[in-house]
Amino acid sequence: MPRELDFFFYIGSTYSYLSIMRVDEIAAREGLALRWRPFSVRSIMLEQNNRPFVGKPVKLAYMWRDLERRAHRYGIPFTSPPEYPVDPDGLANRVAVVASLEGWCPEYTKATYRAWFLDNKAPGEVQHLRSILRALGKDPERTIARADDPEIRARYDGETEHAKGLGIFGSPTFMWGKEIFWGDDRFEDAIEWAGAHPDS
Amino acid sequence: MPRELDFFFYIGSTYSYLSIMRVDEIAAREGLALRWRPFSVRSIMLEQNNRPFVGKPVKLAYMWRDLERRAHRYGIPFTSPPEYPVDPDGLANRVAVVASLEGWCPEYTKATYRAWFLDNKAPGEVQHLRSILRALGKDPERTIARADDPEIRARYDGETEHAKGLGIFGSPTFMWGKEIFWGDDRFEDAIEWAGAHPDS
Repeated sequence: MPRELDFFFYIGSTYSYLSIMRVDEIAAREGLALRWRPFSVRSIMLEQNNRPFVGKPVKLAYMWRDLERRAHRYGIPFTSPPEYPVDPDGLANRVAVVASLEGWCPEYTKATYRAWFLDNKAPGEVQHLRSILRALGKDPERTIARADDPEIRARYDGETEHAKGLGIFGSPTFMWGKEIFWGDDRFEDAIEWAGAHPDS
Repeated sequence: MPRELDFFFYIGSTYSYLSIMRVDEIAAREGLALRWRPFSVRSIMLEQNNRPFVGKPVKLAYMWRDLERRAHRYGIPFTSPPEYPVDPDGLANRVAVVASLEGWCPEYTKATYRAWFLDNKAPGEVQHLRSILRALGKDPERTIARADDPEIRARYDGETEHAKGLGIFGSPTFMWGKEIFWGDDRFEDAIEWAGAHPDS
């Protein structure tokens, strides 16, 4: 069984769209397994007063243009900036926690980002969530009830605390051994690092 | 004569070290000329309340580790994080403006970053500046006097206003036509863009 590269992500992060759409294929080609780990980067960023776009319209506008160009470079579809920010109650992310426990996290996360970026269906809105879950063959009511369960909330918070303890402050973050790599644009660095340090 | 790719930079930006040490060689290989344009990203960032590291120790620590790994990847020397922030009065940057007018900006900027990153000689301190200028065969007193001249100050401020008007908010930034690319990690994107849009 291949060693796992940790993939910490938050549904609501913009650049994470690029990673979510491309990491599985690249990791498979490199013989690496990915461990998809949803966490609340939002809580960490608020706590650390790290708000890269709030009140920064110039940087925000650049981010969308850069994301568009990068999507084009990767062959990932992009039309126009969707609603942002999203998932105020963390529901979409807590469903990702459920999905990670039940083994369908990558397909759920990809479907959620496709709906968000391509159809402007904001993550966390219940009607969008239900439709995504139905398309994946999951029972929306059971899944949403589980995502609201204290056990899942505790696991989401626990993963967030764990990530924070590792020095993680942004999404996406890749981790191999003790090395963390922040940003979609560091995925290749993480892959290279894993290849050069297989036992770290 | 090859078309010029604009290279906006600020002496005092950390990641700019990587660009300053590598862009000339890569641009030459691609048949592009670089126009080295010092500007005060610090003024723009303060004005836009864009302070990525102040009061953000976790992000700051990551930045240095990431910069170290990237330097290693590029074969650029790196020992340990040098003094930061630097050049409080903009003197090192205003000398870069003088150098850009007199045709010795790349060598001056590289020497300044080498002294900063490898010998921890902070840019903007007059004794370091004198020693760098002497090593480049320039007259320190004449050069520093010119850097303090109202004409040079006005040019530095003018370039800063010009950059701000273009939507530039960080250093380094590369510009081709109306497209801006922020960050050392977008230099390759800028090169690709220029190649794909030669007439834009």
